[in-house]
Amino acid sequence: MRETDTRNSGPASQQGMRRANLALVLGQIAEGPRSRAEVAAATGLTRAAVSSLAEELLTAGLLTEAGQATPSGRVGRPGTALGLAPDGPGGLGAEIGVQHLAACVVDLSGEVRSWQRMEVPNRGRRPAAVLADLAELLHRAARESGLRPAGLALAVPGLVGAAEGMVERAPNLGWSGVPVAAELRPALRAAGAEELSGLPIEVDNEANLGGLAELWLGGRPGDFFHLSAEAGIGSAIVVGGRLLRGARGYAGELGHVPVHPDGPPCACGARGCLEQYAGEAAVLREAGLEGVLGDWVGLLAERAAAGDTAVLAALSGAGAALGIAAAGAVNLLDPAELVLGGGYAELAPWLLPAMRVELAGRVTVRPWADDWLTVSELGRRGPLLGAAVGVVRAIVADPGHFSGRGSEGV
Amino acid sequence: MRETDTRNSGPASQQGMRRANLALVLGQIAEGPRSRAEVAAATGLTRAAVSSLAEELLTAGLLTEAGQATPSGRVGRPGTALGLAPDGPGGLGAEIGVQHLAACVVDLSGEVRSWQRMEVPNRGRRPAAVLADLAELLHRAARESGLRPAGLALAVPGLVGAAEGMVERAPNLGWSGVPVAAELRPALRAAGAEELSGLPIEVDNEANLGGLAELWLGGRPGDFFHLSAEAGIGSAIVVGGRLLRGARGYAGELGHVPVHPDGPPCACGARGCLEQYAGEAAVLREAGLEGVLGDWVGLLAERAAAGDTAVLAALSGAGAALGIAAAGAVNLLDPAELVLGGGYAELAPWLLPAMRVELAGRVTVRPWADDWLTVSELGRRGPLLGAAVGVVRAIVADPGHFSGRGSEGV
Repeated sequence: MRETDTRNSGPASQQGMRRANLALVLGQIAEGPRSRAEVAAATGLTRAAVSSLAEELLTAGLLTEAGQATPSGRVGRPGTALGLAPDGPGGLGAEIGVQHLAACVVDLSGEVRSWQRMEVPNRGRRPAAVLADLAELLHRAARESGLRPAGLALAVPGLVGAAEGMVERAPNLGWSGVPVAAELRPALRAAGAEELSGLPIEVDNEANLGGLAELWLGGRPGDFFHLSAEAGIGSAIVVGGRLLRGARGYAGELGHVPVHPDGPPCACGARGCLEQYAGEAAVLREAGLEGVLGDWVGLLAERAAAGDTAVLAALSGAGAALGIAAAGAVNLLDPAELVLGGGYAELAPWLLPAMRVELAGRVTVRPWADDWLTVSELGRRGPLLGAAVGVVRAIVADPGHFSGRGSEGV
Repeated sequence: MRETDTRNSGPASQQGMRRANLALVLGQIAEGPRSRAEVAAATGLTRAAVSSLAEELLTAGLLTEAGQATPSGRVGRPGTALGLAPDGPGGLGAEIGVQHLAACVVDLSGEVRSWQRMEVPNRGRRPAAVLADLAELLHRAARESGLRPAGLALAVPGLVGAAEGMVERAPNLGWSGVPVAAELRPALRAAGAEELSGLPIEVDNEANLGGLAELWLGGRPGDFFHLSAEAGIGSAIVVGGRLLRGARGYAGELGHVPVHPDGPPCACGARGCLEQYAGEAAVLREAGLEGVLGDWVGLLAERAAAGDTAVLAALSGAGAALGIAAAGAVNLLDPAELVLGGGYAELAPWLLPAMRVELAGRVTVRPWADDWLTVSELGRRGPLLGAAVGVVRAIVADPGHFSGRGSEGV
């Protein structure tokens, strides 16, 4: 049944082929500096075609002559290696958390060139005030990086709908129906960041961006399930190297999967959701720390490391609930790996034992091995990294779109 | 983050373009008879190119001159319409059930040309005996259809692994590690169906094929979640018009999603799986019909229609459990629709009320409307239809592959 659907593609055009070949060349060089000859050999393009394509990428500021390439062993002068331009366009990432704001800039290779963070309680705060602070932070990050961002992506703790840049519901902020992208532009102008206010802005759920960061930077296979705690509990389903977003963009709401259907009522209106066992408020309550503000993940990790029995029991209970929900997800999705990310990554030593017991006991109709559950090394940095890196990956994946846009602007 | 990944595609080749254009032309005509001029207008290809491509498809036996096309209003003789060849290659489908075997043949347009069914208790039976009966049935279906099948697809009630044609586990048959495709070939020869024994054979899980049938024949959108009862409880996750198969091909095991984690032990080794509430044995037990053999779905529907209170209560309980598991799946996957299929379609009048209560109460963090849960019209015919139709769809999607294969054979 694995049909190759080649319909609806239309006849190939010369322009479309050049655009595809620009991507082919830049994609090769993104893996590491390469001479034109090496690019030609790897892509099957002629040397003349590679030279012409490289010229366009150099002009667009995406490539740089990186020095001498590895000598090929053949007689003659080795070609100059081409590399991604370290001063090329950057990716600007932003994050709105319940207790913090953050911004960062990465260069074309994904390296972080500036990372800014501000602790600020955002729960119940007016979007305009939050976005004013965020604009300042973005301005600072862009200035410090020395790069010219090509786009801005924003991670939010809520559901982002089909309408561009619209946060439909962010219960942990108390927001609903906030056109974040549209409101961020004037805030950027007011902060003196005129040059950022015209950028394309993408808004996405933090768990989606955390999952993409894991895919792009975490060395994961193309099929995995990423469970994370940020403001709430989220997850990202990655299938064939792509994020499964769902028909309306709401996929991954693991926090409201029923764990004990007759369990305690949840703020969402249902009963016994995962959030009632493994969410911030539930774990703090079980640990006897109800209502504590600030860095709950850091606090729990510190107390657990110190052997606090109430905290250890609370984390074990959360791990069991995560294991039950994850077992259901594994039975439905058959991912190659389960990845524990976001705040859970820091709490993994105390969550994993109970989680593994539930997974081993409930993932039974197929092979399951303990080491298919791993811990993210990106942890809570994931969503912001995913936001910024997504911007530059989009350029590398389709440089013709970027250089076309650039020349329109000039 | 919706990047267009145009890398790794390599330079386009002339041969690849012709193959894509063959698919483009056949795909147009598959939607209904078309003149060459209409195909040219719809595809953007020149009339000369369409004529050349059509000639190749006529020679391969995939097209036929279907008579006069709708006059275009222009002066001159209207072109002859091209249609899918009614005597072209067929799709041969087969199904191994716990209580039955079935085979069917569809023509290129997906119309059923033969449908064969045999009631036979297969639980615990040797694969060789089952496959001998199935081979007879396939032989009869192919003969009756008058078509020459281009491939065979087999629906099985079990997990099909990455190894071609291998049923890894079919607990309801008592099979494990059965190389069904390899064993079916000699059975076909022994049944006198020499011409079928050399066909490409695909083996797939019945719930996967039921979901694909719903996608192809049920008029569904490209994103839906299909829950079905056949031998066990299965599901199919369709995303962007494609079946989500999982990293190892085991996705969709809804029957072992935990519903009440501390519930009764399941044969799989876990506790409280959906199968313990909505599977055949569980529903029959609750209905006071434990151990009844034969057509359990028909029996329950008959008793429920007659107002049998034990049966009504059992189906309501099954509906509630299905609703809890489905709510989790909706929160994770955000499908555009939920479809109740397989045997559940016939039981829908008695399952739906409780199912809707659970869904409405548990799908709360996003919009949810009652009419997003619908009932399959294909019902228990889905898997066999999906098997046969998949064969002809693969031909229409890539006719260059078929005509290439055909000419090698001649």
